[in-house]
Amino acid sequence: MAPIKTGIVMMNLGGPASLDQVEPFLLELFADREIIQLPFQSWLGPFIARRRAPKVRGLYDKIGGGSPILRYTRAQGEGMVARLDRLSPGTAPHGFYVAFRYVQPKSEDALRAMARDGVTRAVAFTQYPQFSCSTTGSSLNELWRAADRTGLRDAFEWSIIDRWPVHEGFVAAMAETVREGLEQFDPAVRDQVLLLFSAHSLPVDVIDRGDAYPQEIGASVQAVIERLRGPNPYLLAYQSEVGPVRWLGPHTEQVIRRLGARGHKHLLVVPIAFTSDHIETLSELDREYGEVAHQVGITHYRRTPALNDRPRFIDALADIVREHLASGQPYGPLYRTRCAGCENPQCRQILNPVAEVANAANPSSVSLKA
Amino acid sequence: MAPIKTGIVMMNLGGPASLDQVEPFLLELFADREIIQLPFQSWLGPFIARRRAPKVRGLYDKIGGGSPILRYTRAQGEGMVARLDRLSPGTAPHGFYVAFRYVQPKSEDALRAMARDGVTRAVAFTQYPQFSCSTTGSSLNELWRAADRTGLRDAFEWSIIDRWPVHEGFVAAMAETVREGLEQFDPAVRDQVLLLFSAHSLPVDVIDRGDAYPQEIGASVQAVIERLRGPNPYLLAYQSEVGPVRWLGPHTEQVIRRLGARGHKHLLVVPIAFTSDHIETLSELDREYGEVAHQVGITHYRRTPALNDRPRFIDALADIVREHLASGQPYGPLYRTRCAGCENPQCRQILNPVAEVANAANPSSVSLKA
Repeated sequence: MAPIKTGIVMMNLGGPASLDQVEPFLLELFADREIIQLPFQSWLGPFIARRRAPKVRGLYDKIGGGSPILRYTRAQGEGMVARLDRLSPGTAPHGFYVAFRYVQPKSEDALRAMARDGVTRAVAFTQYPQFSCSTTGSSLNELWRAADRTGLRDAFEWSIIDRWPVHEGFVAAMAETVREGLEQFDPAVRDQVLLLFSAHSLPVDVIDRGDAYPQEIGASVQAVIERLRGPNPYLLAYQSEVGPVRWLGPHTEQVIRRLGARGHKHLLVVPIAFTSDHIETLSELDREYGEVAHQVGITHYRRTPALNDRPRFIDALADIVREHLASGQPYGPLYRTRCAGCENPQCRQILNPVAEVANAANPSSVSLKA
Repeated sequence: MAPIKTGIVMMNLGGPASLDQVEPFLLELFADREIIQLPFQSWLGPFIARRRAPKVRGLYDKIGGGSPILRYTRAQGEGMVARLDRLSPGTAPHGFYVAFRYVQPKSEDALRAMARDGVTRAVAFTQYPQFSCSTTGSSLNELWRAADRTGLRDAFEWSIIDRWPVHEGFVAAMAETVREGLEQFDPAVRDQVLLLFSAHSLPVDVIDRGDAYPQEIGASVQAVIERLRGPNPYLLAYQSEVGPVRWLGPHTEQVIRRLGARGHKHLLVVPIAFTSDHIETLSELDREYGEVAHQVGITHYRRTPALNDRPRFIDALADIVREHLASGQPYGPLYRTRCAGCENPQCRQILNPVAEVANAANPSSVSLKA
């Protein structure tokens, strides 16, 4: 078999594929100081993870016994590299390598598989459309650490796709899901259905450090709305807060309660920050908030389908990578600018950036629209 | 003189035109429960206003003895109606009427002047690009109250332009100011200048109620960046916090301090939420934060010019009104959807909406892209 010329590392949170993986997943999650900072973390993290595990295992049990994210990521990757081999023959053959953050396959697995396949040119491709230090940032930091741990520090030339909040293909695919979501409503009321965009929340402390996430979420919402050109009103809310710190609002569950109390009957929830179904869509939005909606009198509560293996979304993934490879740049204009309040010296690094900019005087002079 | 056919009410915060107006301005501001909620407001509001007045008077003294906002609003209005008379002869002649929130000319003045000029068709046109209940919402609520107070409740048929965060003309004019701002830097470093978008902050409690402001600010920033297609990195921060409550961050002053500490030397501040120069640009950004930047070693600290009487911006104002009038709609899809956490029953009203939709079954079915 010919060696893979370009390896594309698809970075995402990941989720337990089976019930046995729930506790290890939570242990890894609560150990990640780039997403959660706890006092006495090496002790308190495992304590919280083990305490939450039975409840979370129950939630995964109800959505089919595990997260579908690996299955969808593989479908996306397969479709993406097939398209790339056609669209970008100069960088073919392309291979995809899944790197989840808290569950296998992890960064080590992706790196070792690339080495095995003879890859020398690698693209770290975040699967989070909007950048946050707690998601994409954490995944990239872990990728470089894993390269150290596996002795593969010098094995690849790297470039990074760190965000794509308003990429046209992503926006078009999202608009398609909204239109499909609206088709679940009676045509007589369809134009009045309230669109409730929902994104995973962040602690306000993280935002105060300068995390780009809320700005990019706002941009994604607006881009989808502009693309739809429809009459539907819309709101943006944030979900999945845990623990005692203050999180960015308004909070999706509270918004649903308040909309119900005000007499809204038709609500279409649009997950805007995650591209595959996961516990926050299948369990939190569909089951938990769906129950809340029912209680407060929202008679028609629906959710747009996640992008999952939608062909138009896979087209977008391929386009994003193709444009990135054609640019010859190692990263976009924002990657090297750390949050103003960042205290993590590991942030915003890159190993062996592709040669095109090895001599650039200043990394922030590099231009790339992903 | 022929009567004015279409009256355009230009709503904005306003600012004291002279030093004598500073204390009355602050008294009005601290009395507005739609922007500031204080315990014992009728007593504490005047107390705070009078205590702050000498300091604020000193700030206005240093920027020329008053706010230039009335002068710029009049220049914008004159240019806008001249363009509209050409672009939209069917609704001509057009007149503009300034309605400031805390200083003359106020809503009463605008309404009385429209009645005097024989206006029957009126457009309430916010001068804040992004919607917030504490700015545009408060101005509209005050407009309807003023119509009551002046006995002009039935004098006009109304429509509303409540937001225009990504209107193409606004975005093009903003991009023009950024390009001009960048021209103040040495060409050798121009591409590395960090753009720091700055918007007036809001208390986190207001955002938790569901205020659309941060989403729309994020969208405006992204639209300007996409329009620029340049290599410059950028950040978004929020300024002008007062009082003990928690405000949305990151905070502009703190970001400037942190960027300086990290060795940044070139910074271009871009005010994204206000269209004319005012105390927050001329005093806070230019003088106060300029001094901070100097202290922390940012050797080149500049601000983009405000839109003020820039022809391209006046073109945009005329386009926004022309498109709105051509739509025949009384308001856009968001105006009638109150914040999920709103407790003010006066919000999102309209007096005598234009006839085109008087029979519409549901206000949320109305489509308008402003």
